[in-house]
Amino acid sequence: MLAGLMQQVPLTLNLVRERVADLYPNKTVMTRYCDRIHVISYAELLGRAGQLANFLAEIGVERGMRVATLAWNSHRHLELYFAVPCMGAVLHTINARLHALDIARLLAHAEDRVLFVDRSIWRTVGTEIELPSSVHHVVIMEDESDDALDPSTPAGRSATCYEDAIARHGRAFAWPALDENEACGLCYTSGTTGDPKGVLYSHRSATLHTMACLFADGIAMRERDVCLPAVPMFHANAWGFPYAALLAGASLALPCRQTDAASLVELIEAAQVTMATAVPTVWIGLLDHLSKNPSATARIASLKRLPVGGAAIGQSFIDDFARLGIDVMHCWGMTEISPLGLTNIARSDLDADETRSTRTAQGLPIPGCRLRTVDADGERCAQDGKRSGELQISSPWAAAAYFAGSTGQATAADSFVIDEGRAWLKTGDIATIDPHGYVRIVDRAKDLIKSGGEWISSQALELQIMNHPDVREAAAIGRPDPKWQERPLICVVLQSDSAERRARFAREYRDYLAAFFPKWQIPDDVIFSTDLPKGKTGKIDKIALRKAMAGS
Amino acid sequence: MLAGLMQQVPLTLNLVRERVADLYPNKTVMTRYCDRIHVISYAELLGRAGQLANFLAEIGVERGMRVATLAWNSHRHLELYFAVPCMGAVLHTINARLHALDIARLLAHAEDRVLFVDRSIWRTVGTEIELPSSVHHVVIMEDESDDALDPSTPAGRSATCYEDAIARHGRAFAWPALDENEACGLCYTSGTTGDPKGVLYSHRSATLHTMACLFADGIAMRERDVCLPAVPMFHANAWGFPYAALLAGASLALPCRQTDAASLVELIEAAQVTMATAVPTVWIGLLDHLSKNPSATARIASLKRLPVGGAAIGQSFIDDFARLGIDVMHCWGMTEISPLGLTNIARSDLDADETRSTRTAQGLPIPGCRLRTVDADGERCAQDGKRSGELQISSPWAAAAYFAGSTGQATAADSFVIDEGRAWLKTGDIATIDPHGYVRIVDRAKDLIKSGGEWISSQALELQIMNHPDVREAAAIGRPDPKWQERPLICVVLQSDSAERRARFAREYRDYLAAFFPKWQIPDDVIFSTDLPKGKTGKIDKIALRKAMAGS
Repeated sequence: MLAGLMQQVPLTLNLVRERVADLYPNKTVMTRYCDRIHVISYAELLGRAGQLANFLAEIGVERGMRVATLAWNSHRHLELYFAVPCMGAVLHTINARLHALDIARLLAHAEDRVLFVDRSIWRTVGTEIELPSSVHHVVIMEDESDDALDPSTPAGRSATCYEDAIARHGRAFAWPALDENEACGLCYTSGTTGDPKGVLYSHRSATLHTMACLFADGIAMRERDVCLPAVPMFHANAWGFPYAALLAGASLALPCRQTDAASLVELIEAAQVTMATAVPTVWIGLLDHLSKNPSATARIASLKRLPVGGAAIGQSFIDDFARLGIDVMHCWGMTEISPLGLTNIARSDLDADETRSTRTAQGLPIPGCRLRTVDADGERCAQDGKRSGELQISSPWAAAAYFAGSTGQATAADSFVIDEGRAWLKTGDIATIDPHGYVRIVDRAKDLIKSGGEWISSQALELQIMNHPDVREAAAIGRPDPKWQERPLICVVLQSDSAERRARFAREYRDYLAAFFPKWQIPDDVIFSTDLPKGKTGKIDKIALRKAMAGS
Repeated sequence: MLAGLMQQVPLTLNLVRERVADLYPNKTVMTRYCDRIHVISYAELLGRAGQLANFLAEIGVERGMRVATLAWNSHRHLELYFAVPCMGAVLHTINARLHALDIARLLAHAEDRVLFVDRSIWRTVGTEIELPSSVHHVVIMEDESDDALDPSTPAGRSATCYEDAIARHGRAFAWPALDENEACGLCYTSGTTGDPKGVLYSHRSATLHTMACLFADGIAMRERDVCLPAVPMFHANAWGFPYAALLAGASLALPCRQTDAASLVELIEAAQVTMATAVPTVWIGLLDHLSKNPSATARIASLKRLPVGGAAIGQSFIDDFARLGIDVMHCWGMTEISPLGLTNIARSDLDADETRSTRTAQGLPIPGCRLRTVDADGERCAQDGKRSGELQISSPWAAAAYFAGSTGQATAADSFVIDEGRAWLKTGDIATIDPHGYVRIVDRAKDLIKSGGEWISSQALELQIMNHPDVREAAAIGRPDPKWQERPLICVVLQSDSAERRARFAREYRDYLAAFFPKWQIPDDVIFSTDLPKGKTGKIDKIALRKAMAGS
C-alpha cells in the first residue's frame, strides 16, 4: 500500500477542547438553575475541567475507566464532558429518569468507578440506589443551593461535594495523547428491556459526529449561534449539540432540569438563544404557554431555529412555529448513531408540493451516513417512497456492537449485520425512502413506547403485569397523546373475569407497578378484554391491537 | 486501551462517490468547452468513471500507481477525480502552465504510469514534452472538436483517445475496499525551485477536507449551490471544491480553460451559478468587464458568494462585489494543506470597526486546523495582532512530509517540525494572529512571486539570469500589479556596465529566458543598478529591494 504523507492527527475531543481554548475563551455557557442563573466563560470552564481531571487522577481514575453521571444540563456536567474523555476515561451518562433499580443495574454493568450526581437527584431517587461495589467514589454536584445534604451519605464510600473536590487542584492538566479509537463515552439505550444495551462511543465517532453538526445543510451550528439543548445531556450527549456548539464557537444556554415553558422563555430571553433543541413535547408545551401568554412571544424573538427530534411531528407543528418566525427542522437519530442520522433539508430540485409534503419526513441522510431499507429476506427495498423495510445505517458514527460490560458478553448481536462489504446497524424501525432520498419512519419494529422523548419498554411492563396473580394475558401499547406523543396503555385479560375483579385491578395496578417502574412509565389506563388479537405464530398482534385501541 | 465499539467506516472518497449515486444522480456538471456547452448528469458521470476504471485496470494500473493529468476543468477531468482514487490509484494533477521541461521532470519524479492530456494541451506544449519511460500510455481528452490530432503521436507508447478508450468498457466496476490512509492524490507545489515537492494526499485527508468545506461557518457548500471552480483542477484539486460540491449534492459548472470574463459571464448565466472561486486576478477581470459592459451585470444575478484565495485582496475589491450583491470571503491555504486552512468569517463578538477591518485578513482557522506563529527561536508568538512569526499548521489535512518519488529521498524536511506533542507544517509565510484568532499574512518567508494565482520562483529566475555572460548579480522580485497581483521584475548588475550593454541585455533577456521558462513567468521589465542592497550575511535583502523598487 502506498500511504499518503499527511499528518496523523487523531480525531479526538481534544480538537474541540483546544479550539475553544485558542479561539473562544470569552464565549459563555449560561445555566438556569432552579433558583438562579449562572454564567461562566469557556476559558473558566476549561480551567475547571483541568481541576476536575486532576481530582479524578488523584482518586485513581485511569484510561478506559468509566465515570458515571446522573445529572441535568449544567455547566458542571459540561465540565465532565471535557475532563473525562480528554483524560482518556469514559463518560457514562445515565438517564436520571430511570428507576433506582435500573440505575444500580447500569452502574454495575458499566463498572463505573465514580458517580457524579446532582444534589437534587441524590436527595430523591439517589437515596434508593444500591451502589454496586465498583463505585468507589460519589461526587455530589451543587445544582441546588440547599447544602444540608451530607456528602457522606453513601455508607463505606468516599464522598465529596464537587466544588470541594476540584478546589484543591490546579487548572493545568497534562492531557494525554489519545488514540482516536479509544472509547470516550457510554450511553445505554434502555435500562428496561432486559439486558442493558450500552453504546460505547469512540473519540473518532464523537469527533466526526461533531463535525457533521457544522454542515450548512443540516444542524449548521455557527459561531454566532447561542444554542439551548433542552434535550437532557444523558440522552446521547444531548444529541451532540454541546460538543458541536463548542467546536463552532457558539455560546450555550443550559436549562438544568427546568424545561417547562416559562423557564425556557426566561432562559431564551436571558441568553438570547438562536437555536434550541428538544423533543416535540417540550415545544408543544411552549406553544401552549405562548397561546396563554401572548406577551411572552416577544421575549423569544431571538429564537430562529428548532431542530426537533425524538418523535414525529406534523405540519401544524411546523406551521405554528413558522408563524413565530422559527424554522423547525425535523431530525432523526438514535443512541446507536451518536445520535444524528437524518436532517430534513429542503432539496432545491423539489417542486412546491413536494417541498411541503417532505417537511414532515424524518429527513435526508447526513453526509457520512449511508442508509438503506431491507425487506424480510434482507434484500434492499426500492427507494420509491412506497415500499417499506427495516432501516439500516452504515456510518463512522454508528455502533458496531453493544458494550459487554462486566458480563463479558456482547448483547443483541442481531442488531448488526455485515452486507455489501460493510457493517450495518439494524435500527429496528420500518421506513420508506423516496426517490429524492427522504426517509419516513412508518412503523416501529422494536416494541417500545415513546413518551415525552423517553422510551418505555412494553415488554418490561407486560412481564410485570403477567406476574400479577389475577392476570392471564397482557399487552402494553403506546396510545397517541397530544402532550407526550405517546402514553402507555395496558390491555388485560383476567384469570377469572368479573366486574369486581376488574374494578379491583384498575384500583391496584399502579401501586403494584410502582415497585418496579418510575412513575412516568406507569400506564395511565387499563383496558379489559376477554381476548387479545394474535398473529399466525400465536404472538399478540400489536398492530391490530393499536388499531383496535385507537379510539380508547 | 478500551476501544470504542463503533463501525470502522474508512474515510475514503468512496463516501462521496456512493452518496452522489444514492442521492444526487440527476444533478449535473456543465462544462463550457471553447466551442460548446456540455451537460452531463452525475449518474452518467459516475457510470463513465466506472468505464474509465475498467479501462485503467485493463492497461495495468494497480493500487498505488500514479496516473497523471494535464488538463483544464472539464467533466472528463472530474471523471478521473473519481475513477483513479476510488480504484486505489493516485491522481497526479500537473500544472498545465508549466514549461515542457518541468512537466517531463514531474512525470519522471512521480513515475506516472499513464498520462491523460487535453487535446489542446497535447497539440501545444505536449509536443515538446519528452515522456519519461514510466509513462506507458497516453490518453488524449477531447477538449476541442478538432480531431485531426493523431493519437499515435508519442513514439513507442500506446496512445488512444479518451472516448475510444472507455467506450469498450462496462459501467460497473468492482470498487475495492480501501484503507483510509492510502494515497489518493499527488500535487507538486512548484516544479521550478530545484527539487519538485510533491504532496501525497491520503483518502482520509481528502475526505476530512471535503467535509470541512461543508461547515456553515466557512465554504458552506450546500445542495442548492451551483459551484463554479474557476481555479484550475490541477491546483490542489481546485481547492477541494469539486469533491465538496459532490458531497453536498451541489451542481458544478466547469469553465475548461476559459476564465476570461466574457466566458465566465456566459457560464454563470447558463448554469445559474451561485458560488464561484478563483484567484483575485480572475475576478478583477470580471469587474473590469462589467464596468465596460453594464448589461452583463444582470446576467450574473444568480452569483451570491465568492470565496477568494491565492492572493491578498483589498477592501475595495470586497466593496465592489458587495455592490453587486456578491459576498466575497477571503480564504487562505496552500497545496500542503489540501489546500484550505483559513476562511474569513465575521465573528459575532466583533464591533462594527473590527468587523470591517478584519474583512481583509486571511481569516480564522477552519475547525480541524490548528495554527500558531513562532519566532526565530521556535517560541510561540503572542496572539496580539502585532507580533509576527512563521505560520505553522497542525491538521489531519496538512502534509507531514514530501513525496520522495523515484529519487527515494524525501525533500525539504525542514518544512516540518515536531513540537508540543504534534507535527507542524512550516508554511514559510510570516503572519500575525490577533486576539480573536484572525490570521494576517504579512510577509513571505519563501522567496516566491505570485502572478495570477501561479507561483514563479525568483530563485530559478535569478539562477538562469546569473548564467548569462553579461550579468554579475541579479535579483528577481514581485512587483505589485493591478491585474496579476504581482509580476516578476529583475534587477541586474552587469559585469561591465554601459548604456550599450544595458540596451542589448534589455532587448535579449526575454529570448534568453524563453528556453527555460513558460512565457508568463518571464519578467516584464529589467531594472539596472550598480549595486543591490545586502543584509548582514551578505545575502541580497529582498525586502529592502522591494521597497526601493516600489515605484518602478
